[in-house]
Amino acid sequence: MPAPELPLDRVAIWGVGLMGGSLGMALRWAGAAREVVGIGRDRRTLRVAQELGAVDRWETDPEAGMAGAQLLVLGAPVRVIRDQAAEWGPRVPEGCVVTDLGSTKAEVVAAWEAHIAPGAAFVGSHPMAGSERAGVRAARPDLYRGARWVITPTPATPPWAAALVARVAEAVGARVLWMPPDLHDRRVAYVSHLPQIVATATAAAAQKGDEAVGWVMSLAAGGFRDTTRVAASPVYLWQDILLTNRDPVLAALADFREALDGLEAAVRAGDPEGIARWFSRAHEARSRLAL
Amino acid sequence: MPAPELPLDRVAIWGVGLMGGSLGMALRWAGAAREVVGIGRDRRTLRVAQELGAVDRWETDPEAGMAGAQLLVLGAPVRVIRDQAAEWGPRVPEGCVVTDLGSTKAEVVAAWEAHIAPGAAFVGSHPMAGSERAGVRAARPDLYRGARWVITPTPATPPWAAALVARVAEAVGARVLWMPPDLHDRRVAYVSHLPQIVATATAAAAQKGDEAVGWVMSLAAGGFRDTTRVAASPVYLWQDILLTNRDPVLAALADFREALDGLEAAVRAGDPEGIARWFSRAHEARSRLAL
Repeated sequence: MPAPELPLDRVAIWGVGLMGGSLGMALRWAGAAREVVGIGRDRRTLRVAQELGAVDRWETDPEAGMAGAQLLVLGAPVRVIRDQAAEWGPRVPEGCVVTDLGSTKAEVVAAWEAHIAPGAAFVGSHPMAGSERAGVRAARPDLYRGARWVITPTPATPPWAAALVARVAEAVGARVLWMPPDLHDRRVAYVSHLPQIVATATAAAAQKGDEAVGWVMSLAAGGFRDTTRVAASPVYLWQDILLTNRDPVLAALADFREALDGLEAAVRAGDPEGIARWFSRAHEARSRLAL
Repeated sequence: MPAPELPLDRVAIWGVGLMGGSLGMALRWAGAAREVVGIGRDRRTLRVAQELGAVDRWETDPEAGMAGAQLLVLGAPVRVIRDQAAEWGPRVPEGCVVTDLGSTKAEVVAAWEAHIAPGAAFVGSHPMAGSERAGVRAARPDLYRGARWVITPTPATPPWAAALVARVAEAVGARVLWMPPDLHDRRVAYVSHLPQIVATATAAAAQKGDEAVGWVMSLAAGGFRDTTRVAASPVYLWQDILLTNRDPVLAALADFREALDGLEAAVRAGDPEGIARWFSRAHEARSRLAL
């Protein structure tokens, strides 16, 4: 079966926040979908999404919203996406490709593959875009431009369905990367979930220091601001991410603790070479950051 | 004794890198010094400093360089500044105010107060400016504009000498904060040294993850880049900072570990409320960041 050509006749987006709303705008702006239907519970949010041009129309009943859609995009927080599978997977219409925008993949993919209707197809994906801001009011049509968009097929994924998701990603300006769900999760644990945890713990420690010593925050400068920027992210997103990626997060934390222990021991021992060893490991990683 | 008025006739800057070089430029641009003399060992660096307009002339002999100076600014790495005290403190000319640009204060202030010539005065200071870049080629006359400049007097500091350093800081556009050396060190441990250590350990962990799982760095995005930006800083600066601020750094690390342990336990237990508790502490700190 060949992947449907763009523009698609109808795309449904369930969960029209920063990610889903930006995708709706981008698809409409790019002419990649003739109609974008928003699905959600909160009529006020859906009305704002419509006013901002993120959706053409909206439904609060998921079944009505996904009717006739060639592509259904799940844009809720990860645990919600995962838990939608049991009830809604079996009701996905014939021929519809379902994908999601969640930040962790193994649990979501497993749940949806277990429950999706036989005539439909699920393709996990993770567009690596976003910000500390959340909600449809922060949405913008260029959110995905230049971003990496990871697609996580499994042996159960029909290739034509994966190809459709890749076309959509490219249509909104993203660069597609392919990898299995579990490898995705182990990789993002290091470069996204670990930084989130350490940024949060760093800011929390500064708060404690401020209470103990006073005036600590008056000396916070660019380094503190950058290192803790992601700590401003909404907690409900991160509860879902961390709780759906437990083992990879714990593995990354173990490697972090090894480095932290090494640096702390060097400071305690007054050992400049010990400090230098960990700095050079860090420099090595940063030298391989894509520009 | 009243503080000398600006412009000063002669300022000597010992160590003309990013910090010292920028100060030289700023003093000359602002007309706050009639002559700026660079002191250092490396003639090539001193020549570059002169070409860039950071100094009017230079000397490799410290005694010649500080002759006739009303202000001597120590711009080397912190351990060097500290260790210059025993040999050079006694040779500071009569009436000269010595200050430094080091990032930690207690050890430097103690060493210089113990050794400075009776007719001269030492005033510790820490201008909170800089970047991951280093060296006089990165110097710029506006480095201190809008920056906080901490001055750390003790009961031994002559008020007129502290006032002179404050005038100089304000002349180059900085905002002066006053606090004792030990309080300064405990505060910056939380908002500068702790972030440096965790950023370094985060990047080092990602490097280890990349070696184990592969392609980790291909998924690094803005969050990783920001959280680890300071990890790109030169190690020789941080060896000096961490090794001259051991106890405050270890105290900040203990508070960090408490937060890290709490977050890790919440992830391990699948406890969303535990995660939320630490996020709200972090949000509290960040909400008090100066804009």
